[in-house]
Amino acid sequence: MKAVRLHRYNEHPVIEEVAEPKITSPHDVIVRVGGAGLCRTDLHIIEGQFREKSGVTLPYTLGHENAGWVHEVGSAVSNVAVGDTVIVHPQISCGFCRACRAGDDMHCANAGFPGMDLDGGMTDLLKTDARTIVKLDPGFAPEDIAALADAGLTAYYAIKKAVCLLYPGTKAVVIGAGGLGHIGIQCLKALTPAEIIVVDRSREALELAQTFGVDYAVLADGKQVETVKEITNGRNAEAIIDFVGEGSAVDDGIAMLQRAGSYYVIGYGGKLSIPTIDIISTEINFIGNLVGTYNDLVELMTLTAQGKIALHTTVYPLDAALEAIQALETGNIRGRAILVP
Amino acid sequence: MKAVRLHRYNEHPVIEEVAEPKITSPHDVIVRVGGAGLCRTDLHIIEGQFREKSGVTLPYTLGHENAGWVHEVGSAVSNVAVGDTVIVHPQISCGFCRACRAGDDMHCANAGFPGMDLDGGMTDLLKTDARTIVKLDPGFAPEDIAALADAGLTAYYAIKKAVCLLYPGTKAVVIGAGGLGHIGIQCLKALTPAEIIVVDRSREALELAQTFGVDYAVLADGKQVETVKEITNGRNAEAIIDFVGEGSAVDDGIAMLQRAGSYYVIGYGGKLSIPTIDIISTEINFIGNLVGTYNDLVELMTLTAQGKIALHTTVYPLDAALEAIQALETGNIRGRAILVP
Amino acid sequence: MKAVRLHRYNEHPVIEEVAEPKITSPHDVIVRVGGAGLCRTDLHIIEGQFREKSGVTLPYTLGHENAGWVHEVGSAVSNVAVGDTVIVHPQISCGFCRACRAGDDMHCANAGFPGMDLDGGMTDLLKTDARTIVKLDPGFAPEDIAALADAGLTAYYAIKKAVCLLYPGTKAVVIGAGGLGHIGIQCLKALTPAEIIVVDRSREALELAQTFGVDYAVLADGKQVETVKEITNGRNAEAIIDFVGEGSAVDDGIAMLQRAGSYYVIGYGGKLSIPTIDIISTEINFIGNLVGTYNDLVELMTLTAQGKIALHTTVYPLDAALEAIQALETGNIRGRAILVP
Amino acid sequence: MKAVRLHRYNEHPVIEEVAEPKITSPHDVIVRVGGAGLCRTDLHIIEGQFREKSGVTLPYTLGHENAGWVHEVGSAVSNVAVGDTVIVHPQISCGFCRACRAGDDMHCANAGFPGMDLDGGMTDLLKTDARTIVKLDPGFAPEDIAALADAGLTAYYAIKKAVCLLYPGTKAVVIGAGGLGHIGIQCLKALTPAEIIVVDRSREALELAQTFGVDYAVLADGKQVETVKEITNGRNAEAIIDFVGEGSAVDDGIAMLQRAGSYYVIGYGGKLSIPTIDIISTEINFIGNLVGTYNDLVELMTLTAQGKIALHTTVYPLDAALEAIQALETGNIRGRAILVP
Repeated sequence: MKAVRLHRYNEHPVIEEVAEPKITSPHDVIVRVGGAGLCRTDLHIIEGQFREKSGVTLPYTLGHENAGWVHEVGSAVSNVAVGDTVIVHPQISCGFCRACRAGDDMHCANAGFPGMDLDGGMTDLLKTDARTIVKLDPGFAPEDIAALADAGLTAYYAIKKAVCLLYPGTKAVVIGAGGLGHIGIQCLKALTPAEIIVVDRSREALELAQTFGVDYAVLADGKQVETVKEITNGRNAEAIIDFVGEGSAVDDGIAMLQRAGSYYVIGYGGKLSIPTIDIISTEINFIGNLVGTYNDLVELMTLTAQGKIALHTTVYPLDAALEAIQALETGNIRGRAILVP
Repeated sequence: MKAVRLHRYNEHPVIEEVAEPKITSPHDVIVRVGGAGLCRTDLHIIEGQFREKSGVTLPYTLGHENAGWVHEVGSAVSNVAVGDTVIVHPQISCGFCRACRAGDDMHCANAGFPGMDLDGGMTDLLKTDARTIVKLDPGFAPEDIAALADAGLTAYYAIKKAVCLLYPGTKAVVIGAGGLGHIGIQCLKALTPAEIIVVDRSREALELAQTFGVDYAVLADGKQVETVKEITNGRNAEAIIDFVGEGSAVDDGIAMLQRAGSYYVIGYGGKLSIPTIDIISTEINFIGNLVGTYNDLVELMTLTAQGKIALHTTVYPLDAALEAIQALETGNIRGRAILVP
Repeated sequence: MKAVRLHRYNEHPVIEEVAEPKITSPHDVIVRVGGAGLCRTDLHIIEGQFREKSGVTLPYTLGHENAGWVHEVGSAVSNVAVGDTVIVHPQISCGFCRACRAGDDMHCANAGFPGMDLDGGMTDLLKTDARTIVKLDPGFAPEDIAALADAGLTAYYAIKKAVCLLYPGTKAVVIGAGGLGHIGIQCLKALTPAEIIVVDRSREALELAQTFGVDYAVLADGKQVETVKEITNGRNAEAIIDFVGEGSAVDDGIAMLQRAGSYYVIGYGGKLSIPTIDIISTEINFIGNLVGTYNDLVELMTLTAQGKIALHTTVYPLDAALEAIQALETGNIRGRAILVP
Repeated sequence: MKAVRLHRYNEHPVIEEVAEPKITSPHDVIVRVGGAGLCRTDLHIIEGQFREKSGVTLPYTLGHENAGWVHEVGSAVSNVAVGDTVIVHPQISCGFCRACRAGDDMHCANAGFPGMDLDGGMTDLLKTDARTIVKLDPGFAPEDIAALADAGLTAYYAIKKAVCLLYPGTKAVVIGAGGLGHIGIQCLKALTPAEIIVVDRSREALELAQTFGVDYAVLADGKQVETVKEITNGRNAEAIIDFVGEGSAVDDGIAMLQRAGSYYVIGYGGKLSIPTIDIISTEINFIGNLVGTYNDLVELMTLTAQGKIALHTTVYPLDAALEAIQALETGNIRGRAILVP
């Protein structure tokens, strides 16, 4: 089978033939990939940003955002069956460490992350573990929803943390209405009564955001902080949901945050830099967010089945993976890129 | 009456005669000061760090950490009576804004802070508002507990936020066992089953900490991060309680923080500077802390009455205020300095 | 001025002339009543159910659900001004006890409740306290929103407690779609993604509920427990929101509650009776609910201003109060009865 | 091997020879029992109270509170090894349902409960699942700590739920200082700063409670409600922790509960019966409690290893099981009865 494989950091991956994976443990599940999302994290992987954090040995197959159909299962697997339509939680977790026993899958002490430190899903067959598999209604087309596995889950999870802050009358600023952001906006609408202010550099992204019913769309034209202050009568927003995390976004976000408010860090690449006196004198919080739990993914798929989440995607055949990567690098993808083998 | 007044930033305050305050509003309360704490924030005020944040007009009287006896009350005051022994919550709050109606006194939209933006308590008589007054058992000596009004309250409040994280088997690192830190340690002992690791540059501070039953006392000798990693078997601590907030303390604290852990920022003066990828890949949180609520102060006084909080103080007569300030500047005060008029 | 006054328990109140109230304390506010809600609690008061709990001396003026315009204010009142359109939180609270300082207005240690233990609002002028007044946009007509002061607030508050339980995929059963219930349904829609099952004996109430977008409307025809089990595939609902609290409603509600679920008690008049083994073997909770806080009322008014809450009311002139009471007793009121002086 | 087996409800179990269990699934673990707790639930099982809830086919082996050493493991077990000293979480859970994925082991949709609906531990060898096994330091003697598996876990779990309510100055009433209660008291001391009021009919139990540092020991002599009101200055307690749940305990507990307080139901056998008006007018909560999670058991064992939990037990050889049962029935056991094979 063909796979999109990274051979060297800072070079484009290569599409090449690889052997099919085999069941080697009783909990293994092999998924026939129906859609594999391509995202900014893949670019960061290629750039080597995760070189030390993942410790992966090159070459390996990219693709951490996968959906498809169960192809084969290990001897002890009972939660899914061959043929099931599924979406794959990105992290393999052990089920036995304290974090797993608390439902906190992302902090598993014995984790694997296909596409990051194991062979991923930009290919025909993905090997993963039974604990990652969320069974879906067969009506779902994997290529339509693959991007929910990571981008969607990450957005959902951060929004869910903010729910308790966002009572009627509050305002949430969403920084970045792209791949994650446009899902985050819909999660905010589904889960909270907050008014939503979206900030983005792209007029097109803002137009898309407005179709989801945001209350204010603010162009990041250099005056975005002042505009948010005007919208909030100088009070700023109770929550900042930052899907960018680099460039001036972080400083902007801090300047838009209300006293006692919380800043949800999701995007990355830049730096948070702030005097400690500014943290304590306004008593603000910075909340890290890392993907989400298995149950969160189930909840997000429920929202999607209920018609509350619409994904904007552009489909590329697996053979066109490099083209998709270039389009992402140059900002020329509408919505989320999905590779279909 | 005499008062310790700041005339110019970056110059020592002056002890001079001022007029006695008068009741002008039905909710005013005038307290005869029995003890006024002197703390690092006073040095920061003198240095002008709060010049813009407070907007106070010089000269004014310092002293934001006060206890004493009620001297006079306005016509509408019914919660305290002349002669009551009291400790004074540092912030005057309005009681009507959303924050006040939620019990969140420190985010009052119409606040005043004697000693910061109004005349404070380093004098005989302090004018404040009925909402700030916590009535105490007459057995309390104001000079013994004045430092709880701000230093103690701030420490208690931050620890209380951490309670939910600190289940049996967890570890909390306390950075700085000085004026706030030594109270924070006792609050941790009273409120949580966590094991406590104290980090400080001073052997003397560590010795004091050990009298409160901390589990590990770590000298900040340059190897403190490695030492904490050894103590925690490489897992780091679930919570960092940072009473320093400047110099290398912040970077050290981050390096000691466990995945999914929370960093409580209390001390200030330095900078928090961290790549956003490090916030999301380990999913850590930074939690600001600003003094505490009225009810928190009541709870802290209850703990104190129960014998669970012991304060280490050095008493100076008001006339020796400048001497006390110099001793604080040069690190030559044991425990907390208290001015007694 | 005329007022609806209760002279004896178990007899209808009397409409008679009373003196206008006067400002006697600096925090008093006198409101010109624009609408006073009549509710089942008024019937319970007339029946003497609150005789001991309230300890009120008869005769007194009924009416605990009031909105109008500020008529006169005491000398220390600054949060509202004469002429402001306002809704009145039903409980007068002191602002100084622990509950008040925690924002928990309903557990004030020094409370009063006009219409229950003080003269209420079924008259021209209502005397209350500045802390009860929520200022509204002048566009609000008091008679349209008076019922939110108590019925709406009580429903909102209970729903808000349930928010954390009601993640995507969960189901909430609302028992009773009447005066409180039809507001509760709209609060559920505004605050949660839960699917809503409404149970009521009245086809008309169910039809109204369906206009708010409930997912299932179940007639309480004796088979309601089985119907809910079918809807939930035998799993029952994560939350029961019981606006009835008497008759078979409580037993029905328990039979519809999922393991680890919570039962919100709002309606009253009947009895909760359950073997302790049934509480522990399924680990269910019973959560009491008493009106709501000042901030909750502000939030509810925000939702209403945002067009998310539509109230169904029938207006009666104050002179027709007895007619309204009889209509309520015989179940012949559509929506909520509002008396307009 | 010998086992204590129930043949008929309302008859004493029989000690008889049974076959040794065999590994049949890759996740099975067989534990050599070192101690099996005997508790009031065993009496309730014998009385048939769980006949329908468990649906077990008689005869079967009793014993749901077990500790020992790993004897044999299935092919896929990696979290423990033969020879490990272990305590056994009482419920077998699947690890795949929503509850398991949330860490909520007791609400597993595919659960088993050895000693209740499967063969239990009153024998030499207990067959269970890898997910139930908590590995201990080899220094633990199973007979000393077996009672923590269920009695201790149940007490710990309920107390942990109450932690957020129990800030400094609050009071908790513990009803029943027996097998569970004496552990609950120690958990309260370890986890909260609350003052503890213990109520029991037995002077001996109260004396034991006092060795753990309770603040008030109240004999249930008929005046216990008045005594608690005196202790609390008529304000009652913020939390009632009821380890009895039958007889007059429940009504007593309600009468001792403060407004806005919570009643933790743990003991069972009796009935909770209360007018709904009394639930709403004081806004009280009733919180069910069912054993606890795997992580809770780990935390409890940590507290025990730290010396914060002392168990009072009486050891019986397995052959003397009927004698132990009779002693329990007649109230003649000091502390907790442990059967040792």
